Amino acid sequence: MTAPARYRAACDYLSVAQIYLRDNVLLREPLRPEHLKPRPLGHWGTCPGLNLVYSGLNGLVRRTGQRTLLVTGPGHGAPAVHANLWLEGTHADVDPALSPDGRGLAELVRRFSWPGGFPSHLSPEVPGVIHEGGELGYALATAFGAALDDPELLVACVVGDGEAETGPTAASWHCPRFLDPATGGRVLPILHLNGYKIASPTVYGTMPDEQLTAYFTGCGWSPRIVDVAAADDPDAAWASALDGAWADRDAERPPMLVLRSPKGMGAPDTDPGGTPLAGTFHAHQVPLEHAADDPAELAALEHWLRSYRPEELFGADGSPAGDLTALAPEGDLRLGSVPQANGGRLRRDLPLPPLEKFAVGLGTEVSATATAGEWLAELMRATERRRDFRVVCPDELESNNLGALLSATSRAFTGETGEYAEHLAAGGRVMEVLSEHLCQGWLQGYLLTGRHGLFPCYEAFVSIVDGMVNQYAKFLKMSGEVPWRAPVASLNYLLTSDGWRQEHNGYSHQGPGFINAMLTKKEGVARVYLPPDANTLLVTLRDCLASTGLINVVVAGKQSGPQWLDLDAAERHCRAGAGVWEWACTGDPGRPDVVLACAGTTPTVETLAAVTLLRERAPALRVRVVNVVDLLTLAPSRRHPHGMDEREFAACFGTGVPVVFAFHGYPSAVHEVLHGRPRPNRFHVHGYLEEGTTTTPLDLLADNRMSRYDLAAAAVRHAAGWSSAGGAVAQGLLRTRKELVARAYADGADPPEFTEWRWSQCSS
Amino acid sequence: MTAPARYRAACDYLSVAQIYLRDNVLLREPLRPEHLKPRPLGHWGTCPGLNLVYSGLNGLVRRTGQRTLLVTGPGHGAPAVHANLWLEGTHADVDPALSPDGRGLAELVRRFSWPGGFPSHLSPEVPGVIHEGGELGYALATAFGAALDDPELLVACVVGDGEAETGPTAASWHCPRFLDPATGGRVLPILHLNGYKIASPTVYGTMPDEQLTAYFTGCGWSPRIVDVAAADDPDAAWASALDGAWADRDAERPPMLVLRSPKGMGAPDTDPGGTPLAGTFHAHQVPLEHAADDPAELAALEHWLRSYRPEELFGADGSPAGDLTALAPEGDLRLGSVPQANGGRLRRDLPLPPLEKFAVGLGTEVSATATAGEWLAELMRATERRRDFRVVCPDELESNNLGALLSATSRAFTGETGEYAEHLAAGGRVMEVLSEHLCQGWLQGYLLTGRHGLFPCYEAFVSIVDGMVNQYAKFLKMSGEVPWRAPVASLNYLLTSDGWRQEHNGYSHQGPGFINAMLTKKEGVARVYLPPDANTLLVTLRDCLASTGLINVVVAGKQSGPQWLDLDAAERHCRAGAGVWEWACTGDPGRPDVVLACAGTTPTVETLAAVTLLRERAPALRVRVVNVVDLLTLAPSRRHPHGMDEREFAACFGTGVPVVFAFHGYPSAVHEVLHGRPRPNRFHVHGYLEEGTTTTPLDLLADNRMSRYDLAAAAVRHAAGWSSAGGAVAQGLLRTRKELVARAYADGADPPEFTEWRWSQCSS
Repeated sequence: MTAPARYRAACDYLSVAQIYLRDNVLLREPLRPEHLKPRPLGHWGTCPGLNLVYSGLNGLVRRTGQRTLLVTGPGHGAPAVHANLWLEGTHADVDPALSPDGRGLAELVRRFSWPGGFPSHLSPEVPGVIHEGGELGYALATAFGAALDDPELLVACVVGDGEAETGPTAASWHCPRFLDPATGGRVLPILHLNGYKIASPTVYGTMPDEQLTAYFTGCGWSPRIVDVAAADDPDAAWASALDGAWADRDAERPPMLVLRSPKGMGAPDTDPGGTPLAGTFHAHQVPLEHAADDPAELAALEHWLRSYRPEELFGADGSPAGDLTALAPEGDLRLGSVPQANGGRLRRDLPLPPLEKFAVGLGTEVSATATAGEWLAELMRATERRRDFRVVCPDELESNNLGALLSATSRAFTGETGEYAEHLAAGGRVMEVLSEHLCQGWLQGYLLTGRHGLFPCYEAFVSIVDGMVNQYAKFLKMSGEVPWRAPVASLNYLLTSDGWRQEHNGYSHQGPGFINAMLTKKEGVARVYLPPDANTLLVTLRDCLASTGLINVVVAGKQSGPQWLDLDAAERHCRAGAGVWEWACTGDPGRPDVVLACAGTTPTVETLAAVTLLRERAPALRVRVVNVVDLLTLAPSRRHPHGMDEREFAACFGTGVPVVFAFHGYPSAVHEVLHGRPRPNRFHVHGYLEEGTTTTPLDLLADNRMSRYDLAAAAVRHAAGWSSAGGAVAQGLLRTRKELVARAYADGADPPEFTEWRWSQCSS
Repeated sequence: MTAPARYRAACDYLSVAQIYLRDNVLLREPLRPEHLKPRPLGHWGTCPGLNLVYSGLNGLVRRTGQRTLLVTGPGHGAPAVHANLWLEGTHADVDPALSPDGRGLAELVRRFSWPGGFPSHLSPEVPGVIHEGGELGYALATAFGAALDDPELLVACVVGDGEAETGPTAASWHCPRFLDPATGGRVLPILHLNGYKIASPTVYGTMPDEQLTAYFTGCGWSPRIVDVAAADDPDAAWASALDGAWADRDAERPPMLVLRSPKGMGAPDTDPGGTPLAGTFHAHQVPLEHAADDPAELAALEHWLRSYRPEELFGADGSPAGDLTALAPEGDLRLGSVPQANGGRLRRDLPLPPLEKFAVGLGTEVSATATAGEWLAELMRATERRRDFRVVCPDELESNNLGALLSATSRAFTGETGEYAEHLAAGGRVMEVLSEHLCQGWLQGYLLTGRHGLFPCYEAFVSIVDGMVNQYAKFLKMSGEVPWRAPVASLNYLLTSDGWRQEHNGYSHQGPGFINAMLTKKEGVARVYLPPDANTLLVTLRDCLASTGLINVVVAGKQSGPQWLDLDAAERHCRAGAGVWEWACTGDPGRPDVVLACAGTTPTVETLAAVTLLRERAPALRVRVVNVVDLLTLAPSRRHPHGMDEREFAACFGTGVPVVFAFHGYPSAVHEVLHGRPRPNRFHVHGYLEEGTTTTPLDLLADNRMSRYDLAAAAVRHAAGWSSAGGAVAQGLLRTRKELVARAYADGADPPEFTEWRWSQCSS
């Protein structure tokens, strides 16, 4: 056997061993049932191919000295990666118990898929990993994100048969149009076709070579196909393909590799019952899974294990043979030790511009996101040399009023452009593509390799990446439990173009459910902010971009609107997360009849307009106004680190007074966060009730019972002691609302008294 | 002008008119500001291309008599579709106010993007529409779903520049591998490239012809490219391309068309300020949007409108010229009138097999999904001739224990297969692809054209389609408000392989958040069921498959487990949605110290095991056991139609007694649904706390405080009058749990006393 073949044999052996064995891991004695794990768990099918990929990349790195990050789409092939990490010594570097000897080998083998040990999939516990691979589809976009602005890096990315069928992966093949070869690294996709997913042949696996070539050529790649089954020396064929790809790395059409290899190659051809294994989907997970109970399967398993000749691969003490360890790169060049895979170590704090220059004066009307855009442009300029800050956006930067960024940078695009274009450049640091999946994947890869970013998005469509965010939240949660992982910059969303002002797009563009999705996350991972004006948005964005390890969801308005707080007041308000706006209260704010609370741009406008209405129509009513920026301050402090303690909570919301709460999203989100607070039923939450179409803002608010008239009516109805007097006032308010809506139907627009309402009493 | 060109001019004119005009809609007098809508809303850019597509298809239908359904990806081009619907008379058929004369024309023009009128996007209010197009990416998969099992149908599908960049669309180009030409119709994709999305050139728009050809050839299509800008007669060139595609409809490589046309063609070349319009992204939405205030823009708009020569297209009474109406197909062949677009009219009730033969006896241990699979196989056989029932699944049918279906049908696959495959056939009615997006899109298209289906999915990964489901829920909600739309079969999810038993896959495979997403939906649209055993699953699935107009989420276990109810009891329990399991209570169930409630397979097992523990360790404790199948019965009846009234609720949960609630998903979902019930803080909900990894079931339960020991401990701690005695019992229970977990860590598996626990007292 050649040295590379021996290396692969060692990795394959260790992969099988991890899945099945708890003892006798080097087969120094005959295999007996008690040597087996009680429940063999893992996925063999993809392992031998991954071992070929990994060992081939080792060779490339040794020959070229090229720093290489491996993104493994088939994360269920974790045993293969573990085997390589142990052989190259990365495992021992972060955990001495995984030493490069028999003891470490036994520990590795036992620890895989064992309670308290390594999960069956790649995960943050595994060095070199920035991608879990459990939910398939995102490896390639992540790889491109990792390569952005890192010209010294090669990112190799394995995409499996199954993952290739997903939409996000299919879109990712177009990514070279967004990666600037001058300022960024290289991405080498490796489409690993073993022909089957869990139970069926795959789309790409069944495509003949000429179709694969046409498809990837059409995407702009220069594809090469390596067929292991047809190669005399698979390692040599693979090494040659990698060398060729490396040689062509600067070609106009970048190289990509298709690796065909029989699924689970190396396993027995059939099980004792005659079911085919190697080369079929039956090798996907655990072939011979009844070996502990079935002597024939046990014998087949032992025969399989011994076919790798472990006695020739490992020394007497269990350490790998010397010719094997010599095949791995050294130090930081080991695939598991590349610094970019622990990006928190590389992360530098952003040079966040001071806010003063951008703050908005009271009494002016501005777009909060436009103001934020000016500040973000300044940040973009401040990072021009560092190139560690990017904005990803699904073709909505200008539509979200963030166009000022284009004064500081351009949209990244390397393809041929049409006859007319604006603000396009290969090195641009705004990434616009009409795919939330790509935006998310790029940003994940960028953050996890130590950089910073922002994802502005239409609020309704960010749910497209719910699945990805679920997985990323898990990755962050687990990363926080791994001592050697340094925290990465937070994943920051700026959700705007929200449903309350989607009069030109209508019902499909109205959906605030991402907030609800965030509330299912671990309390250490997710934050939700609803700054009500430009200054609070500036403060919030600055704090989010300075934070680490979180998913920050910031919901803000893009339309021109009133400014409630000057910068100092905004700083104080955001620091508290929620507070009484005393200047907006009526009567004695210490003894209110009702609390009017609000969270979000439109609810804040409507609430303060409701107070104005109440001053006119119920002047004796004592109203306290509370604004909430940090939604999670509402949670009991025992449930959430941002939760106000009961004293702070009572200072805002009292202990028994009715609260009319105007909320930007679904009322259920507030009810859910409030759970555990005393007497939650005194909170009457108004919010989005899934009523919508293309109509005027007032009509939309009215349909969802969130207009100023509805809020004021609710206030007098619920206010303590107002049950009788409140009824008539409420009826009058609702009558006015109906009249105004009727006028909007006749005129096609809201009446001036609605749209031109101003709040002139803003104060700090 | 040729007749087709005149037809298009009429459609283009009407499209512009809808966006801008409220009066003087035929320009019988000079255009004045008061003729304009106060806020012009709509998207012009895609309209002229859509009008070319639509009028060309009209010609094809007239020449061939082929029934054709149009799926319009760029739903923001609604004005174009409205113009065609009015011209062909479909609009007048469903609403006499939209008559084919000046009055109807004026009404159509005014109604677009007007309060109470038509939304700016396509929507269920629009005849011929089965796809909204607001959230982009799903048109092509929907089109394929519509074509399945309908060999007489041609589905033409427009995919725009922007949509083409999305992942779901990129994956959809591979769909021909799943559409059987013998049993299904034909799909003709029309990739409409006008070069720009909102603000940038597009990926596909900038691909040169040879790249496009290679790409689509690689996907298995035979692409043809039509460039309007280069054609002497665009209508003739387009008609010829359509005729060619029709002629090749049965070719091995099916035809697809790429239509290049300048964005917003027909609009002025520039605005008065010199900004380019036609042929650039500046024509995307509303060019000249300040026409009401800017005389130069007003003049440009009038010039633009008059360039279509409306006086030559519409008669004195405003009706379209006779040569125009002759160009549209007639009756059901009109694109807007094709019966498949109102699929509820075609839907026939399924021949649902009686359950008796499949019901499971008490005392046996079976997999609930395997039992369901046998019944579904019978349903598959019963629909073999009708071919109106399909199962879509992301490569997990067998993994979800539904493999019995493959005894009745096969997996659909028309591509070349590898050397080894099982249960593959072109006409198979199980659709397996590793793309939740494709599964969802196919099923939506299938249901909306009058058929039935089921979507089994790993619970954690169904969130991948959160965005699609949000949109579908909106489509259903709006459809219910349209009198002429007949209800379609419900969209049924069977979520299994849930997180409580993902010991081989770990943390990434644990995520019950889809339930939370469903709870944000309109109360008339979504249902959530958690049948605890095989018989209740049978009843639930049967009822879901008989229902219409809903999204039903059924969460069920796949592992072998105890059967709690015989079929009669299951029928009664599912009809009630929730109820006391008297046979499981201890002491007097009418006067419990604590209620132990449960919803979901694993929580039910753990709860009944907790009762067993309590019988031993706290024999004096009076425990009432309540099981919840229909989660929404917990909601107050004023908030949800399934909500129990307060009397029924009290019969289950009392009015003041503590409730320990073991829930399958996030506890927040229960808190949210319970909101509005009196004294909600007496409910102590245990559920998934986002703690997970590859470990044993007991360890996972313990980490989330949902093991039988935790539930029993919570019961004695919270039970009325047990505050002191309960403490010691609780400590003992938790000590036992810790000991058992420690043994699992040592042995790698749960101890037999956990895994082999049986409930032997099941009874109806």
